[in-house]
Amino acid sequence: MYKGTSASAGIGIGTAVIVEEAELVIERREIADADAEIQRFKGALERTIADTERMAQDLATRVGEKEAEIMQGHMMLLSDPMLTGEIENAVRNEKVNSEIAIENVCNMYADMFASMGDELMQQRATDMRDIKTRMQKTLMGIQSVDIAALAPGSVLVAKDLTPSMTAGINPANVVGIVTELGGRTSHSAILARALEIPAVVAVTGFLSGVRDGDEVVLDGSSGDVYVNPDEETKKLFTGRQSQFMEEKKELEKYIGRPSVTKDGVRVEIVANIGKPEDVEKVLQYDGEGIGLFRTEFLFMDREAMPTEDEQFEAYKKVAEAMDGKPVIIRTLDIGGDKEIPYMGLEKDENPFLGYRAIRFCLDRKEDIYKPQLRALLRASAYGNIRIMVPLVTCIEEYRQARALVEELKGELDSKGIPYKRDIQVGIMVETAAASLIADIFAKEADFFSIGTNDLTQYTMAVDRGNKKVSYLYSTFNPAVLRSIKHIISCAREAGIMVGMCGEAASDPLMVPLLLAFGLNEFSMSASAIPRIRKLVTEYSVAELQAVADKAMSFATAAEIEQYMKEFLGC
Amino acid sequence: MYKGTSASAGIGIGTAVIVEEAELVIERREIADADAEIQRFKGALERTIADTERMAQDLATRVGEKEAEIMQGHMMLLSDPMLTGEIENAVRNEKVNSEIAIENVCNMYADMFASMGDELMQQRATDMRDIKTRMQKTLMGIQSVDIAALAPGSVLVAKDLTPSMTAGINPANVVGIVTELGGRTSHSAILARALEIPAVVAVTGFLSGVRDGDEVVLDGSSGDVYVNPDEETKKLFTGRQSQFMEEKKELEKYIGRPSVTKDGVRVEIVANIGKPEDVEKVLQYDGEGIGLFRTEFLFMDREAMPTEDEQFEAYKKVAEAMDGKPVIIRTLDIGGDKEIPYMGLEKDENPFLGYRAIRFCLDRKEDIYKPQLRALLRASAYGNIRIMVPLVTCIEEYRQARALVEELKGELDSKGIPYKRDIQVGIMVETAAASLIADIFAKEADFFSIGTNDLTQYTMAVDRGNKKVSYLYSTFNPAVLRSIKHIISCAREAGIMVGMCGEAASDPLMVPLLLAFGLNEFSMSASAIPRIRKLVTEYSVAELQAVADKAMSFATAAEIEQYMKEFLGC
Repeated sequence: MYKGTSASAGIGIGTAVIVEEAELVIERREIADADAEIQRFKGALERTIADTERMAQDLATRVGEKEAEIMQGHMMLLSDPMLTGEIENAVRNEKVNSEIAIENVCNMYADMFASMGDELMQQRATDMRDIKTRMQKTLMGIQSVDIAALAPGSVLVAKDLTPSMTAGINPANVVGIVTELGGRTSHSAILARALEIPAVVAVTGFLSGVRDGDEVVLDGSSGDVYVNPDEETKKLFTGRQSQFMEEKKELEKYIGRPSVTKDGVRVEIVANIGKPEDVEKVLQYDGEGIGLFRTEFLFMDREAMPTEDEQFEAYKKVAEAMDGKPVIIRTLDIGGDKEIPYMGLEKDENPFLGYRAIRFCLDRKEDIYKPQLRALLRASAYGNIRIMVPLVTCIEEYRQARALVEELKGELDSKGIPYKRDIQVGIMVETAAASLIADIFAKEADFFSIGTNDLTQYTMAVDRGNKKVSYLYSTFNPAVLRSIKHIISCAREAGIMVGMCGEAASDPLMVPLLLAFGLNEFSMSASAIPRIRKLVTEYSVAELQAVADKAMSFATAAEIEQYMKEFLGC
Repeated sequence: MYKGTSASAGIGIGTAVIVEEAELVIERREIADADAEIQRFKGALERTIADTERMAQDLATRVGEKEAEIMQGHMMLLSDPMLTGEIENAVRNEKVNSEIAIENVCNMYADMFASMGDELMQQRATDMRDIKTRMQKTLMGIQSVDIAALAPGSVLVAKDLTPSMTAGINPANVVGIVTELGGRTSHSAILARALEIPAVVAVTGFLSGVRDGDEVVLDGSSGDVYVNPDEETKKLFTGRQSQFMEEKKELEKYIGRPSVTKDGVRVEIVANIGKPEDVEKVLQYDGEGIGLFRTEFLFMDREAMPTEDEQFEAYKKVAEAMDGKPVIIRTLDIGGDKEIPYMGLEKDENPFLGYRAIRFCLDRKEDIYKPQLRALLRASAYGNIRIMVPLVTCIEEYRQARALVEELKGELDSKGIPYKRDIQVGIMVETAAASLIADIFAKEADFFSIGTNDLTQYTMAVDRGNKKVSYLYSTFNPAVLRSIKHIISCAREAGIMVGMCGEAASDPLMVPLLLAFGLNEFSMSASAIPRIRKLVTEYSVAELQAVADKAMSFATAAEIEQYMKEFLGC
């Protein structure tokens, strides 16, 4: 038996497929036409950038923003004129092929970084070698291992999964993942959880004990892994698998049931999505609507702005599929930390405090915001679309967005194009400013959705992606909880709907508090819906008031979280 | 007569001194010993970095953080291993002197950046040429124009002042500044205001109409400039100068008077300082104490950590000079956006939401925080020192800092070293989190000081240094004002002192509101003290309540600011 770190729950039983990257052989060739060779390099560079952007985007929508960051780091290196300029110089001055120019220049930098000792520089060295290989493969037309083409029932075995490997992983063919390296928060682990594939990581020496085609069983909760197990072990794992599936089934009972507390308070449990195709899973898990449709996917991974019609089709598709259920669509929430060359966004010194989201959209009304709002209005004729404005900090921003909507309604009227006349325009409450003046917003906005990820980040002045300070990032901080409570009560007082689309909405420790505060709508990844609905049905809001009062009496996040754990008995 | 943009108020009458940078001649030399030449380069690089850091620090303390940013950008380029690695390669491979290697490599990059078109890249090209010249000058032992050595009564005339030129400007010898380029917010203008030197910028064609030694008169308020004026004009300007001085004198009457409102409410008007030498100006303008002593200067512009004794001497000097008046010293408030190589701080993706201030200090207790706290305790035996902890977001941070102070008190006791036994330990309230739980903090902290610059920044989620979004950065936002009001009322309820050390404390439009809210202490740059004291004596807090209530009833910053302008009649 091997023992590793549990990374994603569930039992995997299948056939080992060992994934390793082959060594590249780079040959030196003299070239006659430097200009043509540089064009060849530039073409490959562009394709590599596009591929990297695609992988980043794929990871961002399928797994999460944080996971996409590594690839975004690669994009930055690939776009650095110091690096590419020097490769071009090498081709021109030494009259060599691009592969060898890339080899020499990237190795020089990688060695330089590696020799500098500190951790950040080590990472830069690794990144430099990664992009080197990717540019060379693109030039040489070598495909990476195509994980998407694996046979069903495969257990993926690797030293560690690189970001480029993970792009094709699919629960339809991969039933388990085992890696020698990594930890609970490593790339492979996060990805496995997002895809609900059982996984064990940090299994020391595993690669020397397993061969392609071996039978492998793994328990993603305990971290146990067996190669070619005996009958008894296999039986044990098959039993555990049944049990795991049964618990899953128990939760599935809540599909189709109403989201009502014991004392009859009805809430809406809805889903966050990133692409029209995600609707399928929402319907499967019985989401009562879409609480957050991120529209960034439409703008990323491409060479030019999406047209109004392209956007219209995407919004319409979701609206129609949800068949009258509410679909909250957030307008473009993008900033200088995203690499979207055609938008001409510069990298800000503090991207999270910079030129992004509604700030950017109101500055680019003609070419970006109006086409999006017009597409949303047109699509609203096909379902229950609501428009949500992100990152507002002052009422002027909301008023400007709303005025644009009214202006565009007039335009559509004059052309006889249909739209939902009473379309709601709400805001994402995710800044300290919006929380502090939630009463002012509640008088004008049609609904609120609390974005707890950013709200926590801005309230605590903590970049949650920064490992050195992420210990401060907790929605259980009394400051953040007070802010949430305040936002909800302002909305309730004004009689508007208030939802939540941050991660807190699906945190079982948080749900009782949110029910007590009076939250109307909980939005989360579709697969979490049954568990949260079950939870909601087990409480009475009246009883939870005392729990919330007690929780809010503590001075620290640790005490509040501990108290909620005791209350839930976990 | 020339007409320019008014940049800094006051009348300047003096002798023109034209400042221009000389062209460098770079010669190519073959070198025999590449290692020795690389050492020569490295030495010059280090000195250039140290000089740049010194200029950045000088600008940061004398003028402001924002102004120091250009130099910090230069530091980043100078520290880029891609650049320096390539210069070293050029020396080694081409066997040439460092000057020419720098010339070729920097020019290549500058040209590459310049050819890329966008504004950011143009700026990088300019920066690249600047650092090229500075490294070459350092290698060649060429001194820049020494403005510090100008004769008294000089009017500085230049195309534009580069950051490196401004380092030596001093009101003792420079009575006015005229530049052909720049605007009200350009480097030269901000510097002139900070130093109270009359200045006019953007004077088209001025350099062709003036020669070294000409008599120049300028009015920094109207933007008028004359070269070799006739008697009448000179008389007019002398008259305006007297009037300007008179108004200044009128304000000086408030030196020595108490800071008491018409209805007898006494407040403290104190000063922000960055270095022990700044105390002189505080005493000159009758500051009633120090509301904020930034301790960063002790840590910047040097090769190694300051010793505990060095720190002790600096704190003691200020405590003694202030002779029993309160001296609030803020513990190290530094992060990855500052280049302090010996601290090993990495550049964060979002420095303002990163590893900095108390987060950093609590992580580096032994080598950084304890020595600073021990130095503060020891110095507290010589005056009324209070310790202020920056960037707190949760009570645990305050408790940890306080526990360290108590631990160190025990240590000093056991060694018989004296300190102020009842030394106050307070917090800087500058995050949304601290504001939201100000009542929790008020129960444990000894005092509050509201840092409006950061509080506004974090509340509005705006990096004030980012030009594209700085329009959102206003303390008059109702969200920020509510936060300030809340913090003050929590402090007053708990019976602790509450001050303010951000720029809002010396904004005449803000002072009436702060008096109404109950602020105890106003901390600002020393020269602003008389004006604000005069203002305080003109109001009655009781009357201001209605003004504040009215101001707080508006929904936007623009309405609040407009209302306050009407109230003040400006």
